[in-house]
Amino acid sequence: MKNDNIARLLISCPDRPGIVSAVSSFLYSHGVNITELAQHSTDPEGGDFFMRLEFQTPYMDVSASTLEKAFDEVVAERFGMNWRISYAKPRKKTAILVSKFDHALYELLWLWKRGKLQTDISMVISNHDDLRAPVEAFGIPFHHVPVDPANKEASEERIVELLEGNADLVVLARYMQILSGELVSRYPRRIINIHHSFLPAFAGADPYRQAHDKGVKVIGATAHYVVEELDAGPIIEQDVARVTHRHSVEDLKDLGRDLERQVLARAVKWHLEDRILLYGNRTIVFK
Amino acid sequence: MKNDNIARLLISCPDRPGIVSAVSSFLYSHGVNITELAQHSTDPEGGDFFMRLEFQTPYMDVSASTLEKAFDEVVAERFGMNWRISYAKPRKKTAILVSKFDHALYELLWLWKRGKLQTDISMVISNHDDLRAPVEAFGIPFHHVPVDPANKEASEERIVELLEGNADLVVLARYMQILSGELVSRYPRRIINIHHSFLPAFAGADPYRQAHDKGVKVIGATAHYVVEELDAGPIIEQDVARVTHRHSVEDLKDLGRDLERQVLARAVKWHLEDRILLYGNRTIVFK
Amino acid sequence: MKNDNIARLLISCPDRPGIVSAVSSFLYSHGVNITELAQHSTDPEGGDFFMRLEFQTPYMDVSASTLEKAFDEVVAERFGMNWRISYAKPRKKTAILVSKFDHALYELLWLWKRGKLQTDISMVISNHDDLRAPVEAFGIPFHHVPVDPANKEASEERIVELLEGNADLVVLARYMQILSGELVSRYPRRIINIHHSFLPAFAGADPYRQAHDKGVKVIGATAHYVVEELDAGPIIEQDVARVTHRHSVEDLKDLGRDLERQVLARAVKWHLEDRILLYGNRTIVFK
Amino acid sequence: MKNDNIARLLISCPDRPGIVSAVSSFLYSHGVNITELAQHSTDPEGGDFFMRLEFQTPYMDVSASTLEKAFDEVVAERFGMNWRISYAKPRKKTAILVSKFDHALYELLWLWKRGKLQTDISMVISNHDDLRAPVEAFGIPFHHVPVDPANKEASEERIVELLEGNADLVVLARYMQILSGELVSRYPRRIINIHHSFLPAFAGADPYRQAHDKGVKVIGATAHYVVEELDAGPIIEQDVARVTHRHSVEDLKDLGRDLERQVLARAVKWHLEDRILLYGNRTIVFK
Repeated sequence: MKNDNIARLLISCPDRPGIVSAVSSFLYSHGVNITELAQHSTDPEGGDFFMRLEFQTPYMDVSASTLEKAFDEVVAERFGMNWRISYAKPRKKTAILVSKFDHALYELLWLWKRGKLQTDISMVISNHDDLRAPVEAFGIPFHHVPVDPANKEASEERIVELLEGNADLVVLARYMQILSGELVSRYPRRIINIHHSFLPAFAGADPYRQAHDKGVKVIGATAHYVVEELDAGPIIEQDVARVTHRHSVEDLKDLGRDLERQVLARAVKWHLEDRILLYGNRTIVFK
Repeated sequence: MKNDNIARLLISCPDRPGIVSAVSSFLYSHGVNITELAQHSTDPEGGDFFMRLEFQTPYMDVSASTLEKAFDEVVAERFGMNWRISYAKPRKKTAILVSKFDHALYELLWLWKRGKLQTDISMVISNHDDLRAPVEAFGIPFHHVPVDPANKEASEERIVELLEGNADLVVLARYMQILSGELVSRYPRRIINIHHSFLPAFAGADPYRQAHDKGVKVIGATAHYVVEELDAGPIIEQDVARVTHRHSVEDLKDLGRDLERQVLARAVKWHLEDRILLYGNRTIVFK
Repeated sequence: MKNDNIARLLISCPDRPGIVSAVSSFLYSHGVNITELAQHSTDPEGGDFFMRLEFQTPYMDVSASTLEKAFDEVVAERFGMNWRISYAKPRKKTAILVSKFDHALYELLWLWKRGKLQTDISMVISNHDDLRAPVEAFGIPFHHVPVDPANKEASEERIVELLEGNADLVVLARYMQILSGELVSRYPRRIINIHHSFLPAFAGADPYRQAHDKGVKVIGATAHYVVEELDAGPIIEQDVARVTHRHSVEDLKDLGRDLERQVLARAVKWHLEDRILLYGNRTIVFK
Repeated sequence: MKNDNIARLLISCPDRPGIVSAVSSFLYSHGVNITELAQHSTDPEGGDFFMRLEFQTPYMDVSASTLEKAFDEVVAERFGMNWRISYAKPRKKTAILVSKFDHALYELLWLWKRGKLQTDISMVISNHDDLRAPVEAFGIPFHHVPVDPANKEASEERIVELLEGNADLVVLARYMQILSGELVSRYPRRIINIHHSFLPAFAGADPYRQAHDKGVKVIGATAHYVVEELDAGPIIEQDVARVTHRHSVEDLKDLGRDLERQVLARAVKWHLEDRILLYGNRTIVFK
């Protein structure tokens, strides 16, 4: 029940004195209790300021829409803020796209079932039918949308149709198809992909083979927001594992699966808890 | 020059609504610009609240002492706060105690020389004379205070005499003598020790041998504040390294030296930047 | 098919010159092809020597039993070796004991299904019935053996009965009951447990709470062979994760689940591939 | 004294049965005691085989040159081996090239002084004179060889002259000049460089700024052998550290220094102990 009343305020604006005071006093004056506060300034003089506040609203003296309107007028305009308030309820809807690899999918479903992801999973879409049974066993709708290379548009249209109104977040959990720029543009900063390398190293196809050929001693995985340019969106999270000459390409893939599922799960969790702000092509993550 | 005006406000108090608003508005009203703010609540309902603000004072409209007095009356009393303001200038004075191992000492001296530790190193004290030359080469006074097991009191008296007025912080950089409770009580939460194990495992003597005998696969080092009970003070920082059956006790010591110097350096840095608060026997580190 | 012919020779003996030559020449003379070789000496002079060879037997010129007999006579006696040859086929049988936590169990089942564990999983036994459905979905027999505190002997008798002939390895995947010394003695060095702390720190109950109370900055998990003394058996593998004051006990448990499943999976994998030798209460792991 | 008799045999050849047997029996027959043995096969069928043996020679029944000649005739030819024997005594000579950054240099000097590097450091060469005093304090010759952009050839000639006969290994400990292809070709696989990024990401100049701009969450350092193509030689060792949006470029550089000195020190140590073999553009490191 406590969670029902949680909201998060995300702010970015030019840094200058008085921001924390103005924001916190405004919220306090409306009966709001701040439970988490994190801020970051790229430079106190002439830099950019970022802030995330989590607060509870059971004793708020006005409606959410009134609070938002007042905040805009009283605080945001004065400081030239980009801002939004996100409410924990109703929960965000997440759609997962997957191909045949199941590890990243299972991790998300398992965490979700244990109540560790603040979302409803609205559907799983796959270009293969292999994972239908385990997904449906979780009580989640599974849609098989085959991709015909000769007619990718038709598949994408079907995906768009399925997502429409059912996805605040789209997660590519090792979905082995490239989304069109048009589809990407429908979900700006709301599509998270897991790439199986330590980006920007080894962008593109078959990164574990690239890593093996190069003889690196550490491999990685990268969760990032999807933008039109392939593998170039803002990085949310990365992690790495040590490897040696003893690891074959197959071994790297096995090790990498562990990295991929954990890195993706963390990125999705932070997105759902509104912990991620964007600063150009970089992310600020208030974890 | 910018650094000269830096101050930090550290607060702990029972958590309740309005703290951030009260503190930030007070500072803003006095022309103070908050450049860093971190907070932590153990529980928004009935828990404890901790806060660290770093701010710049060039445009402050009152003197430091007036600001402190006003803060106490206007804010601190109302919320039942434990608090203190620490100023970056004058810099804290640090005394380092060492025996024969040089790695942790060198790390501190090297960081200090590169301007990475916000302190003046007032002296190095050792129960051996071995490290005199390298210490003096840094332009730092070196005091050889031998410890006669039959008369430890005399040595301690000499140390107390040397430290008197010259040490805001005492760092035990692998000082192989146990300080008396009386000496410890003179520097509450101002003595940092590096212990060469992953405390609370392997407290006491010869931890690398203990770790080797036990066959652990990970070794560690722990920086902690010194309290009367040996190796039991609040942990500031820990780090670990993987080991295998191939590592001899000597190998563990070599690996451990790397951990020790880094862990100690981080703890000392955080202490000097007033990033550490205490919560019972635990630390809150706003890094 | 290649895997069908794999065997591993594990040796421990006093170190002295000529061991590698004698062993490798013996195997070569019988048409055996060594594909992996690892050795470790605690000290070339007066120390102990450990060796693991993996070899393929398609062109072996004698039967397995003849080879073993000859090895004993020709090589092992001469060097005073403890040794055994383990064959990849038939695969070892593994029984998993579990309570209500599913993470370590799922990890093992998922790896097994992907062909990453060289074993047949003969059964899962639990003192609760909760995990029956997912286990049976994997096609693995599930046995619910409730534990009545007033009559633990009856439960253990039932477990012994189930395991009899069906378990070369017993894995305690967060099984929350303490096995009797009698049961442990039936499976010397063939029961692997996952303990949710960085042993020897925080042995016993509720280690995450102990870790939280102590304010450690790193938590860990430990996979070890079970011996009669609780949490004191030879450590096979450990891993750790960094934590801060922000982590609640519940957060530590979440983080810890990740460690536990990975650490246990690695230990089980190495055991099944005969990569672990014992040296007193320590392990030699040729990974 | 024990160390004086240590030698290492490094082998690479096509994999086929009988190699271990032939090599170990040959050595044993000449009174040589193998103290370490590591091997690696890229594929037992049709792959490449690599082996490192460390052995002690006090009871060897022939001279080193006779042993080598016999090994070539009796063993190496039969298996088509590339091989060499390297003797711990006389110790290899190492020359260090450095510019103004001191961290990697100090780490090497400190480890060397503690006896952890099996080498004599014959000289330090720098294009600046800044580090003369600390280097000479270690009793090591320091040569200031300024680099005039208009006449780089003259500087290189001077360096070549200094190195001639005095360097089995050349270490670039953050030497900020690019060596000519001609100089590189004089020391094939005997020049080790530390690059301050996780190669192949961020090759070239100012990698910490590149990493910061890209918003990566992990930074790294890479030790590699120098080849003509810049930053493209075989990778010996890498390590990484986690970073967040809070780290400025300057912070990355500070963190990076820790990585650089450790990664370089490990690579140098392994080279000096003859633990590194080359396999195309990759390294096999028998650590």
